[in-house]
Amino acid sequence: MQDFTFVNKTEVHFGQNRIDHELADVMARYGKRVLLTYGGGSIKKSGLYDRVMKQLADFDVIELDGIAPNPKIDSVRAGQKLAVDNDVDVILAVGGGSVIDASKMIASAKFYAGDPWDLVLKPSLRMDIDQLPIVDIVTLSATGTEMNYGSVISNPETNQKLGSKGPNSPAVSFLDPTLAYSVSKWQTAAGSIDIMSHLFEQYFDNAANKDVQDGVKEGIMRAVIKWAPIALAEPDNYDARANLMWGATMALNGITGVGNENVWTVHPIEHELSAYYDITHGVGLGILTPRWMNYVLSAETAPKFAQYGRNVWHLTGDDDMEVAKTAIQKTYDWIKDLGVPTTLPGVGIENDEHFDAMAQAAVDVNKLDQKAYVKLQPADVVKIYEASMTTDGFE
Amino acid sequence: MQDFTFVNKTEVHFGQNRIDHELADVMARYGKRVLLTYGGGSIKKSGLYDRVMKQLADFDVIELDGIAPNPKIDSVRAGQKLAVDNDVDVILAVGGGSVIDASKMIASAKFYAGDPWDLVLKPSLRMDIDQLPIVDIVTLSATGTEMNYGSVISNPETNQKLGSKGPNSPAVSFLDPTLAYSVSKWQTAAGSIDIMSHLFEQYFDNAANKDVQDGVKEGIMRAVIKWAPIALAEPDNYDARANLMWGATMALNGITGVGNENVWTVHPIEHELSAYYDITHGVGLGILTPRWMNYVLSAETAPKFAQYGRNVWHLTGDDDMEVAKTAIQKTYDWIKDLGVPTTLPGVGIENDEHFDAMAQAAVDVNKLDQKAYVKLQPADVVKIYEASMTTDGFE
Repeated sequence: MQDFTFVNKTEVHFGQNRIDHELADVMARYGKRVLLTYGGGSIKKSGLYDRVMKQLADFDVIELDGIAPNPKIDSVRAGQKLAVDNDVDVILAVGGGSVIDASKMIASAKFYAGDPWDLVLKPSLRMDIDQLPIVDIVTLSATGTEMNYGSVISNPETNQKLGSKGPNSPAVSFLDPTLAYSVSKWQTAAGSIDIMSHLFEQYFDNAANKDVQDGVKEGIMRAVIKWAPIALAEPDNYDARANLMWGATMALNGITGVGNENVWTVHPIEHELSAYYDITHGVGLGILTPRWMNYVLSAETAPKFAQYGRNVWHLTGDDDMEVAKTAIQKTYDWIKDLGVPTTLPGVGIENDEHFDAMAQAAVDVNKLDQKAYVKLQPADVVKIYEASMTTDGFE
Repeated sequence: MQDFTFVNKTEVHFGQNRIDHELADVMARYGKRVLLTYGGGSIKKSGLYDRVMKQLADFDVIELDGIAPNPKIDSVRAGQKLAVDNDVDVILAVGGGSVIDASKMIASAKFYAGDPWDLVLKPSLRMDIDQLPIVDIVTLSATGTEMNYGSVISNPETNQKLGSKGPNSPAVSFLDPTLAYSVSKWQTAAGSIDIMSHLFEQYFDNAANKDVQDGVKEGIMRAVIKWAPIALAEPDNYDARANLMWGATMALNGITGVGNENVWTVHPIEHELSAYYDITHGVGLGILTPRWMNYVLSAETAPKFAQYGRNVWHLTGDDDMEVAKTAIQKTYDWIKDLGVPTTLPGVGIENDEHFDAMAQAAVDVNKLDQKAYVKLQPADVVKIYEASMTTDGFE
């Protein structure tokens, strides 16, 4: 087991309707002046906005709405100005990962005199300045941002989409599974695949003998595999939404990844797909993941894939390679059964014109040729994109 | 899934020899005046004391030694006086669960004008007063106290041994697996069983559909089952000590038990054994646990025991009762193979003279007749003690 340092101070309030009797008390810990951040009008349509405002009756509320998916630096700039002009004490973020990610950056930008894009480009700047506390109410579960330090911000002017870490995770996160009842089948499937991918990225890692961490991840995988199809069939199944919501948080709150050695592989390969073709991140991951697994499967990696097969899919048999292959097929089948496309043409990507450029960028951003679980050159990544064009290799 | 609130702010520094280059900086966060707490002379013999004092060269160090297993309220009283008289800023606890448990209570007692036993009897008193930060260096891993809110303190005058929760978990915990190399085979086996029991107590619970939490616990169980025998065979196997150390912390840092419904069952039944006969807690748990499993196994509980068998022991077969029985036998075999006694006569308990009184006390302390996973009357607990007198029921 490798050395690690772990700390996560986020306070989780998990359960139905807890905001209605706890939110005001929680907010009062941090002050009177609240910057309320959210996305489009869905929280108004659902009634959540009114429930929140009822709790905030005794607070001074400044609003920043319109935070879009793949949150833009312009939203952060607008939030910075509001936070400074009104000297806000705390941010209340209501929404999915995008709203929370933007809010994290605004929380730092309040204490930074320059352009907040500086803080994205140079995250170390954030470590020396203060950060507003963030309270959030999660409405769509997948990214885990509600209990971690990360955020991803886009800058359309420079065509950059960059992840970075700040000094603090959210102070308090409200996780109410009923708020996910209205999440579409498409987003439910994509979010479930995203959770699984977060676990895979940390699981397939060369740091040896971390059985505690591996076992934790295997257990969360089994829960996601079990409950995602149920959430699709019964969108208001509380336990399905609850297991996906807590699974998403657990998958990326840091505790599942302690003592790891390698960088993530499939995420950067997918980020290029999303960047070039604007496809849904989780769907892209679902297409690429089984091809990546097939591509990196070898005598050397078979034991880890077989461990995955035995502990997650209950496969038996002594032949690691056979168990590994069956586990990969089962992973493919699970994704397919969620009802999402399983090939690139299925999401409208009909040719390979950008594969070389995308592969180069994917390798460069995370140094996949040096730091990946199985090191990949751009030519390897091209082959993974190419394998994603057809269903060849899967039954 | 049931509602829960979770927060744990302990910062974990995991790895070999990190105290030698990090301890001084960590301590400096909290102040100059340090109360150093430890047990007997073992940390002096091992050289750990000198390593700690080298890091504390620029601090004012007040020492409280002699904190015994099952820490006594007198140690807390002595620590309270030292902390107040010297106006200490922070406690550095070096040792196992007993030293850390006593230090947690001293940390509160510094801000309490009365007798610290009051704080044990009425834990709510601690919630309104301040608490010193605690930094700890774990030398024996089992209780998980290094990352939770609990402590158990004994009062020989009143024959009471009481657990209670305080307002904070330790600020920083150093987990160095090499410090466990010198732990005896007996304590290694007992500690490993204690970890498993902590997981069982939270796993066999009537709160339904908490697959994420169940899966996390199943994964930690597999790691402990794998590595405990290796730690016995090779006391200085780093990865064995590392998985047991991190497994112990994870098993009881709160994250494994969120959303639970029932009280613990086997621990209170064992506490009476230890109280009457002064046997090692983990060994007592190892004797009682398989008998408790057999006793509560029924058509109603078989599915959960079968889930345990399939996900932890890789058992196959569709008959829940058969899988459950095999899983219980495997649990027994694993404990037996750790080399500890598996019956009460094996630890010197030759007759049933105290069983009635012990059973009544065990039921009373945790309300096992109302709040247990399977409700138990005193007569039921007597039968579990009686079944522990022989190996009947196990192959």
